Amino acid sequence: MLNYQPAPLDLAFQALADPTRRLMVERLSQGPASVSELAQPLDMTLSAVVQHLAVLEASGLVRSQKVGRVRTCRIEPQVLHSAERWISERRASWERRLDRLGAFLVETDPTTRPRSK
Amino acid sequence: MLNYQPAPLDLAFQALADPTRRLMVERLSQGPASVSELAQPLDMTLSAVVQHLAVLEASGLVRSQKVGRVRTCRIEPQVLHSAERWISERRASWERRLDRLGAFLVETDPTTRPRSK
Repeated sequence: MLNYQPAPLDLAFQALADPTRRLMVERLSQGPASVSELAQPLDMTLSAVVQHLAVLEASGLVRSQKVGRVRTCRIEPQVLHSAERWISERRASWERRLDRLGAFLVETDPTTRPRSK
Repeated sequence: MLNYQPAPLDLAFQALADPTRRLMVERLSQGPASVSELAQPLDMTLSAVVQHLAVLEASGLVRSQKVGRVRTCRIEPQVLHSAERWISERRASWERRLDRLGAFLVETDPTTRPRSK
């Protein structure tokens, strides 16, 4: 694990592990917002908000663009998709295994088999 | 944010932010495994694996049970579901907003409107 480069999913899940950053993503999922609009409902300094925004941007979940004096932030959906897909694939794999287990239990249950031992 | 108690989603996303822990979840999504089975494909000490397992258990993604000398680990699907749902709701919200924006652009596009200005 020497020289390990964080994978996109490391950065995405790390970014989502913070409640303030999840609030920011939640706000941006409703449409673009300026940094001050993002900061408005949050009980923290603008500089703390900017730091959270930097983590979100480094993860690729959010991008921002400065026009004049206003920096506008918006969701980048690809990384959100990748994170969702990783989880749903694990869940699907777990559920398939559970289905196979259920089928096996029914097959081997002596009370549901035509032949009893 | 003083005395902040980590929310379940904080712990879940934090647990998933590490590639080793994602490999462990991936293995367990295929069925229960002992700690040594979990450790076998990983290039690290057993004690490092146990530490990763502790993070996974604290998040509620995995639980383990020791019977005799063998600790068996398995997926707890509820937390995986919550994490997936949080992301999919944000994505859905973002897509609805995009749909509304699309409809608005079509409605206000002078080339598709019956009346031109």
